[in-house]
Amino acid sequence: MSSFTGEKISVNIFGESHGAAVGAVIEGLPAGEIIDRETLRAFVKLRAPGAAHTTPRKEADEVKILSGTVDIDDRTFRLTGTPVALIIENTDTRSGDYSKLENIPRPGHSDYAAHVKYAGNNDIRGGGHFSARITAATVAAGGIALQILRRRNIFVGGRIVCVGRVSRGGFAEILPAELSAALLNRAENAATPEMVDEIKLAAAEHDSVGAVIECGIAGLPAGLGGPHFSGVESRIAAAVFGIPAVKGVEFGAGFAGSVLRGSESNDAFVIKNGKVQTETNRHGGILGGITSGMPIIFRAAFKATPSIGKEQDSVNLSDMEPAKLTITGRHDPCVGIRALPVVEAVAALCTLDLTIL
Amino acid sequence: MSSFTGEKISVNIFGESHGAAVGAVIEGLPAGEIIDRETLRAFVKLRAPGAAHTTPRKEADEVKILSGTVDIDDRTFRLTGTPVALIIENTDTRSGDYSKLENIPRPGHSDYAAHVKYAGNNDIRGGGHFSARITAATVAAGGIALQILRRRNIFVGGRIVCVGRVSRGGFAEILPAELSAALLNRAENAATPEMVDEIKLAAAEHDSVGAVIECGIAGLPAGLGGPHFSGVESRIAAAVFGIPAVKGVEFGAGFAGSVLRGSESNDAFVIKNGKVQTETNRHGGILGGITSGMPIIFRAAFKATPSIGKEQDSVNLSDMEPAKLTITGRHDPCVGIRALPVVEAVAALCTLDLTIL
Amino acid sequence: MSSFTGEKISVNIFGESHGAAVGAVIEGLPAGEIIDRETLRAFVKLRAPGAAHTTPRKEADEVKILSGTVDIDDRTFRLTGTPVALIIENTDTRSGDYSKLENIPRPGHSDYAAHVKYAGNNDIRGGGHFSARITAATVAAGGIALQILRRRNIFVGGRIVCVGRVSRGGFAEILPAELSAALLNRAENAATPEMVDEIKLAAAEHDSVGAVIECGIAGLPAGLGGPHFSGVESRIAAAVFGIPAVKGVEFGAGFAGSVLRGSESNDAFVIKNGKVQTETNRHGGILGGITSGMPIIFRAAFKATPSIGKEQDSVNLSDMEPAKLTITGRHDPCVGIRALPVVEAVAALCTLDLTIL
Amino acid sequence: MSSFTGEKISVNIFGESHGAAVGAVIEGLPAGEIIDRETLRAFVKLRAPGAAHTTPRKEADEVKILSGTVDIDDRTFRLTGTPVALIIENTDTRSGDYSKLENIPRPGHSDYAAHVKYAGNNDIRGGGHFSARITAATVAAGGIALQILRRRNIFVGGRIVCVGRVSRGGFAEILPAELSAALLNRAENAATPEMVDEIKLAAAEHDSVGAVIECGIAGLPAGLGGPHFSGVESRIAAAVFGIPAVKGVEFGAGFAGSVLRGSESNDAFVIKNGKVQTETNRHGGILGGITSGMPIIFRAAFKATPSIGKEQDSVNLSDMEPAKLTITGRHDPCVGIRALPVVEAVAALCTLDLTIL
Repeated sequence: MSSFTGEKISVNIFGESHGAAVGAVIEGLPAGEIIDRETLRAFVKLRAPGAAHTTPRKEADEVKILSGTVDIDDRTFRLTGTPVALIIENTDTRSGDYSKLENIPRPGHSDYAAHVKYAGNNDIRGGGHFSARITAATVAAGGIALQILRRRNIFVGGRIVCVGRVSRGGFAEILPAELSAALLNRAENAATPEMVDEIKLAAAEHDSVGAVIECGIAGLPAGLGGPHFSGVESRIAAAVFGIPAVKGVEFGAGFAGSVLRGSESNDAFVIKNGKVQTETNRHGGILGGITSGMPIIFRAAFKATPSIGKEQDSVNLSDMEPAKLTITGRHDPCVGIRALPVVEAVAALCTLDLTIL
Repeated sequence: MSSFTGEKISVNIFGESHGAAVGAVIEGLPAGEIIDRETLRAFVKLRAPGAAHTTPRKEADEVKILSGTVDIDDRTFRLTGTPVALIIENTDTRSGDYSKLENIPRPGHSDYAAHVKYAGNNDIRGGGHFSARITAATVAAGGIALQILRRRNIFVGGRIVCVGRVSRGGFAEILPAELSAALLNRAENAATPEMVDEIKLAAAEHDSVGAVIECGIAGLPAGLGGPHFSGVESRIAAAVFGIPAVKGVEFGAGFAGSVLRGSESNDAFVIKNGKVQTETNRHGGILGGITSGMPIIFRAAFKATPSIGKEQDSVNLSDMEPAKLTITGRHDPCVGIRALPVVEAVAALCTLDLTIL
Repeated sequence: MSSFTGEKISVNIFGESHGAAVGAVIEGLPAGEIIDRETLRAFVKLRAPGAAHTTPRKEADEVKILSGTVDIDDRTFRLTGTPVALIIENTDTRSGDYSKLENIPRPGHSDYAAHVKYAGNNDIRGGGHFSARITAATVAAGGIALQILRRRNIFVGGRIVCVGRVSRGGFAEILPAELSAALLNRAENAATPEMVDEIKLAAAEHDSVGAVIECGIAGLPAGLGGPHFSGVESRIAAAVFGIPAVKGVEFGAGFAGSVLRGSESNDAFVIKNGKVQTETNRHGGILGGITSGMPIIFRAAFKATPSIGKEQDSVNLSDMEPAKLTITGRHDPCVGIRALPVVEAVAALCTLDLTIL
Repeated sequence: MSSFTGEKISVNIFGESHGAAVGAVIEGLPAGEIIDRETLRAFVKLRAPGAAHTTPRKEADEVKILSGTVDIDDRTFRLTGTPVALIIENTDTRSGDYSKLENIPRPGHSDYAAHVKYAGNNDIRGGGHFSARITAATVAAGGIALQILRRRNIFVGGRIVCVGRVSRGGFAEILPAELSAALLNRAENAATPEMVDEIKLAAAEHDSVGAVIECGIAGLPAGLGGPHFSGVESRIAAAVFGIPAVKGVEFGAGFAGSVLRGSESNDAFVIKNGKVQTETNRHGGILGGITSGMPIIFRAAFKATPSIGKEQDSVNLSDMEPAKLTITGRHDPCVGIRALPVVEAVAALCTLDLTIL
């Protein structure tokens, strides 16, 4: 199952890189919510190919909604509460680029593992169902969730905090009261000029770089989630690891926190504005699997794009002999750039799932 | 829901720290498997309190199986294929230690978040359902899974790779052919003397330390798992974040991998013994959410035990005033020591879930 | 999986007829509910063996609660909101009665089908996990649900409407306003003297009879449930078919309704006490999978107890030759009598699942 | 959630009667299966409007597949093993017919219940998401399942056994060896001339009639399914009650069986062709929730189409006053005719779910 399954919401994504369309069916969305078309379109565009430092593949990435909505006017539609099906048609597909890969799996890619799982029956053009293109559907679903959350004063936003060897501070240093605005400030949270240089440097060498994206969720009340395997960390991590190329997820102080003493990593409780809060937020907004009322903060580590122009060693599955591989398709030198809205979308879906009664 | 729910196996854990018993119901186990009682008992003992550097609470932690098995002889029993219910009775409970916590939530603990979620109705003695004591049931369930896996030549084992500021190498440097033996070598994978010193130092200062546990899974074939949200990383991460105090999970090169170039992090395919393998294993055995046939390697970051003897700042929920808190109960200065078999148990349950048809 | 899984509540039942205990883990119950011990005990007793016209097996059927509750006083306990584990120990087991069945499957029983499914590894003593004894756990879980529902003015109750050839009227003729009281009137809803005679007649001939139980649910608001496969009929039917020996489930007019014209089976809407209602209730309280605000009415058909004293034809699985079988164990001549509280319990669990936010 | 969720397969259906399209996403289908386009088209046509005695609405009902397949040639395609998304566009929608229903719920329809559930936000044109038109997607999904099953020598087929007061024999009298052919014989299993007359008679009186459909599944091995709430009856019943207008489901002897004695309803085991079988099949192929190796036989009771031309009593939700309603849209006078392939589709999906490893 390729689908995201929350307690209240499910998102079944489908599609192949070079098929007719990618899309999603979203169930469990609350009836009566008003969605702004242009805001949704703008969010989906953030992930669309063609942006600076990304693949030159051209895709309009227009979201076509097939069900679960009723038009209000040219700008808005209303959710009916029944399943929302949306599709994004594939238009610019050049299958020729991939024909040579049929028998030579690309290192770092799903090619070989998928070949075994599907006994060679899967669509390999452009990575088929494993292509990051399928995340366009996730972003569209998340874009709807974001609008619902914002109306409830819940804000979800990501920041690129590391590209290759270039890093910068995350949301931890921002005061909770100012976090909502910071989460929404896209310009400030995107790649810095130094990060762009790091990407360009790798691209010039026919190589790629990894990235770390931090994501914050502000405005959630305390008491959501559950103990043990139903904890909020489990739910968010499962969803975020569902994004292609993610190899690590941490909350609050995360791995760095394991070096701390208890007296350092415990966040003392305080009363602020008549509410229980913590001064610091090393727990990342989750205690015992349950929201504490403080912002949720998590980070996702993306490996470098496995598709690189440099020649690589692989094997030929047809004769089981060593083979050389040089990938010539169109690929992002850093998946982190376009993954930013994907992380936000996934976080928004998890958050909406937590907040719907 | 506190339960672990795989595609084939589910484990519903229950219990409170100071209740009658903790336990688990395990569904989906294969019929006909022979389980050795003593091996199971020995594995559960690894997590039991009373070991060196752990809480002085005394619990026999005898596993009592209520259903789903038929006795073969004194040493072994057979799984019938129907739900296995097991309980571990609580015997040494000193509720007095906790009475003062009713209104003052312990920093770093679930107390406050759970208080909100359950509107004050939850059992707070010893942390109630949020106590790590409930993981005894998980360990018992995992101990059964481990025996089934071992018979199928699949080996799951953990290693403490970091305690506070003391770290050492993980499984990455071990050749795949030698990994199975290394996973089983408990003495070598437990805390080193330097780590024990780090724990003692913290304990002497009425403080605690965090830890990182690495876990390896050797012997899995390629082709298990699935794309996007059904990927193996998603499943394992969801389960591992269900262990109390885990704040980060990473696979293969993980967060460190995000600094690498694609040409560095891609694992080249090679033919070895007539099989497709990779020379290196920075992908941690999973590509595109699917097993590659290489060992799965993941790490879990544990925060320092939040219960410390040092005085801490908190609030009194009854009058919403600041309060000082000094915890006097019996607590492990490093949860990592006893969490080792919990990580192994959870990994074994995920692995068994992947391998059952 | 033997478990009942609703949207909010799950009940994992376990146990074998001649094992240590049967039991259940119930997740998702609302925190803070007060449960009366004696009321729960009395409900569980309704299903306990030893009642008139039932198996002479003696079982105290005392419910022992292991988790998820806090005692208030001798008479009541409070739900904490965490998983409730309960067990009912088996005491009066006479395995000798069943030893001869090992190779000769009982007609109408699960013996042969289970033998194939579990490859001969299942516990066959007393039917093992397939014994109706396991429903004691379901009844205990349902008994808790019933108390929660009653406090919310939702009433669930069953009536034996048919035993063999003896039938009587169901709840359809009772006015909605008087239905709640009728659902609770156990004496009136149990078997009539004529039904008891029908059972005695069958028993005297070493035979058994089938039964039909009708169940009503009053007090639910309109708007619960969902379209298509999430409909209330689907949920209740799935749960009721999980009761051993049920071979048919129908709602409202059910099978008889398929003979009617639309003008006869449509229930006209009317306004009563300022609320939308229907005068008649041939739809059984569910329209389009969603509650209409009228009482839910369903019927479950139970086949005759397959264990009969008469000699029957079967086969010997060890030599694949025809074999004669005469069952001498202790069995109810009509499962319908003791199934009444089981149907009520299952209906209560489904209803609670619908009503919890 | 509107979706069918099996253990291995899920089908998420979406769409509204007057929306852009209805469709389904099917996950878990086995990779490598070859599907014949024309056979699929012919099966979907069986449900399409425009056939004799059905609504005059004209819909081509062409299935457009968006993902999860690779074309082999003009006639066939291959399943890749990834999610199959299919849509059927709506072309002939006349929303004008329904505008008057906005405030006056149709008796016997979901209108009122859905109005409450979605707080008036749902699409009411043509019944919106509750329209039987959405079952076109289910039929397309089931048509794929049927082809996969047939290749494995598993046959699923339905028969109209009752229309209003006209009934005829079902599959019970057909020898198991001849059942497969009988299940496939569509001409013989469709409505008889007497049934058609019964429908015409009702239509002439601006009324409608109910129906009963029987469905058989031949070729399944023994040992599939599970105990208690995971039984095959539970799974099939949940799916079949998901078909609009179904109010009863029974297996084998069903409700009629509850009148029988145990000695009459037990099916004796016999050895035939070296295999354990039963001579009779009153158990309908399922014992203890598990397949017995005999054909599964179930019946579904459909109520009469609620949309009738006769004037009916209802209420006006805007002023809460009584109102008269005369429905003038295009409606089938007997849903049973077009429901036949829907029942077969749902049964095929359940069966495939049981048989996939």
